[in-house]
Amino acid sequence: MFDLYIANKNYSSWSLRPWVLMKALNIPFKEYVMPFEGGTGVSYATFKRFSPSALVPCLVDKELAVWDSLAIIEYVAEQHSKVWPQDVAARAWARSASAEMHSGFATLRNECPMNCGARVALDDLSSALKADMARLDEQWQQGLSRFGGPFLAGKDFTAVDAFYAPVVFRVQTFGLPLSEASQVYVKHMLAQPAMQAWYQDALEERWREPSHEADTLKQGTLTADYRKACP
Amino acid sequence: MFDLYIANKNYSSWSLRPWVLMKALNIPFKEYVMPFEGGTGVSYATFKRFSPSALVPCLVDKELAVWDSLAIIEYVAEQHSKVWPQDVAARAWARSASAEMHSGFATLRNECPMNCGARVALDDLSSALKADMARLDEQWQQGLSRFGGPFLAGKDFTAVDAFYAPVVFRVQTFGLPLSEASQVYVKHMLAQPAMQAWYQDALEERWREPSHEADTLKQGTLTADYRKACP
Repeated sequence: MFDLYIANKNYSSWSLRPWVLMKALNIPFKEYVMPFEGGTGVSYATFKRFSPSALVPCLVDKELAVWDSLAIIEYVAEQHSKVWPQDVAARAWARSASAEMHSGFATLRNECPMNCGARVALDDLSSALKADMARLDEQWQQGLSRFGGPFLAGKDFTAVDAFYAPVVFRVQTFGLPLSEASQVYVKHMLAQPAMQAWYQDALEERWREPSHEADTLKQGTLTADYRKACP
Repeated sequence: MFDLYIANKNYSSWSLRPWVLMKALNIPFKEYVMPFEGGTGVSYATFKRFSPSALVPCLVDKELAVWDSLAIIEYVAEQHSKVWPQDVAARAWARSASAEMHSGFATLRNECPMNCGARVALDDLSSALKADMARLDEQWQQGLSRFGGPFLAGKDFTAVDAFYAPVVFRVQTFGLPLSEASQVYVKHMLAQPAMQAWYQDALEERWREPSHEADTLKQGTLTADYRKACP
């Protein structure tokens, strides 16, 4: 059985990807939640003990450490056939879209960090954020129409949905603008049991990481917070 | 046969990855060099015609477009068994290291952009650049010692070497500090026929992209330029 090291469910967008994929596909694993420093003093040195890059997520399979969300997903895909779509064209599209997310959408990441429990009214969308959202919306609509939905690459939840799962939570938190087709996808994703399980765990967390909280409110105002209050 | 769309060989680090991999592995493809805007006026609209994200590289296989360097490499790997190492552990390591490069090493990218023909004396290394170099060196040494070299994941050139090929040129341009084992790797990579072919093509290019040239000299002083002079 795999061991998966992740950070706070409320904040760690990269951790969500392999977690939600394996939950959605019923691939068994044991999770280890290692909160970011602000919460409990866990630091780089602690992360470095299980992850060669000192970053999460990191999957450990006996002696083998696989760090980075995309490498983990390819590793799992070698053992489980449903990670990527079966169709060659859908699989190439899904991998391209996932890799584009993996290295891109910098403004969306920076201006709208994942903070599952918070709701924020944005003051105004920067032109760079509008450009990221336009590309995202174009890409989602293309996948949904080309492969028939309700998931990005067809009828099943695959790795590309896992790669965009953090964006789904960001859309919910920041009320980001999307076409109707993309909004339907967001609702569909939020209703998935694996997404709901992560979300509920995130709301239960009592850790608050000051830098993540500050980044969340850099471009807007808090309108609600569904997380359990700190003691 | 694949069509591979790339940008200027002198500057486009992402383009180099699939190009050098396919050359090193003798996988046939036809290249289309689409220079960045500064050189000839080619713009976003032109890139968008062949690449869904309007970014290079983009591989086209008949009707199928595969954008993003990592997705291209996984697509090619489905048809060619030597793209990733054969050994499971070496393959997991190679994919992790490649994915770490794909989304990380931001300071190294920003402060030391690829500019194959230039030689630059850095004023001073920022602490963030030193941290990136320390992680890079640690990772390279780990791969070289664990899998026996002379390539990062063993005796053959694989995708992880392609992923770090742009860093090899950056080390040459900026004289970046590395351990002896990593320096031996850099020399070995620079001597590869596929790397030399790219480098010679880069030196022949007469396009100069002002933003890339300015970024190259942001942290240092030009000491040599081996590119053919502009007419």
